Amino acid sequence: MDVKNLLKNKIISDAIIVKPSLINVSKFINHQIDMNLMYDISTFFVEHFKDKKPNKILTVEASGIIPAGLVAYFMGLPLVYAKKKSPITLGGDVYSRKIFSTTRGEDVPLAISKAYLNENDNILIIDDFLSSGGSVLGLVDILNEARTNIVGFGVIIEKGFEQGRSRIEEMGIDVFSLIRIKSIENGIEFDT
Amino acid sequence: MDVKNLLKNKIISDAIIVKPSLINVSKFINHQIDMNLMYDISTFFVEHFKDKKPNKILTVEASGIIPAGLVAYFMGLPLVYAKKKSPITLGGDVYSRKIFSTTRGEDVPLAISKAYLNENDNILIIDDFLSSGGSVLGLVDILNEARTNIVGFGVIIEKGFEQGRSRIEEMGIDVFSLIRIKSIENGIEFDT
Repeated sequence: MDVKNLLKNKIISDAIIVKPSLINVSKFINHQIDMNLMYDISTFFVEHFKDKKPNKILTVEASGIIPAGLVAYFMGLPLVYAKKKSPITLGGDVYSRKIFSTTRGEDVPLAISKAYLNENDNILIIDDFLSSGGSVLGLVDILNEARTNIVGFGVIIEKGFEQGRSRIEEMGIDVFSLIRIKSIENGIEFDT
Repeated sequence: MDVKNLLKNKIISDAIIVKPSLINVSKFINHQIDMNLMYDISTFFVEHFKDKKPNKILTVEASGIIPAGLVAYFMGLPLVYAKKKSPITLGGDVYSRKIFSTTRGEDVPLAISKAYLNENDNILIIDDFLSSGGSVLGLVDILNEARTNIVGFGVIIEKGFEQGRSRIEEMGIDVFSLIRIKSIENGIEFDT
């Protein structure tokens, strides 16, 4: 079975609908992690993005780390993850933004040390979920301030009924999601 | 060069001494991650722990996720990471503890959903740093409450001048560190 159908089946069998806009995939993606499924997902991203020739993979802690880390490993590249910490805690020279966290329902800080970004970087962003796009837009904002080139954004699950994709595409960034959820109103329906 | 010497060289060249008890390895371990080095480290852990036959790898977000995830992947096992979130944010039935974070200088919550631990589990814990052992002891406490069997604890860098090892060994847990730092008083000195 291909990875899209594997993932859809997993979502149908194991995701929990929390409310009509929110599913919980903590059984296999972001608390307990099915590493075999993550291998399949990551190698699919590697295949999709290999011609973009990134030199660094970026994500946001904590749930983006596994898919982004595997993509980095299979591409032979370093991984950098933005920390959800105040710049003070991180110490030194950092880029920072405040982002709105859908899951926490509040603003959280996002920070990356300036030492790990530079204007020669070709950045591929990988994350687990795309909803309103808040965390990725914060990340993009930091990457723009650091004058890096963003070659694309790969995400495992996109909520097609939220505005994340259009907000990120407006920044001129290529968005690629493995699967897109159309609606969670009457069970989980997929677009692609 | 073997992985221990690779890592020591990396620490000598790239770690920053923050104060005599604290080094910053964010250039290659816990902010920007050298995935090739992490591969070498993880396969070393896999070799060391394979006879213990774990069925699940546990760690604490966020910096433990890469080494623990790679160990899980190479062993063909699921990864579970404890979240530094309040049980309320996590929702549902969770085990939770408060732990003292050395890096943050304050108590942080630690939580794992009850769904992902059970009394038939043979748990291998993997983390990046062992200092006072606070987060691992919180994790061990949760794992004991869940009646799991803990087969060992593997850590990349141990600070030999702190009490983490003895506190964890007192719980009857086998502690294996890749390298042990003896002192950071006059530059970085290694024990093993």
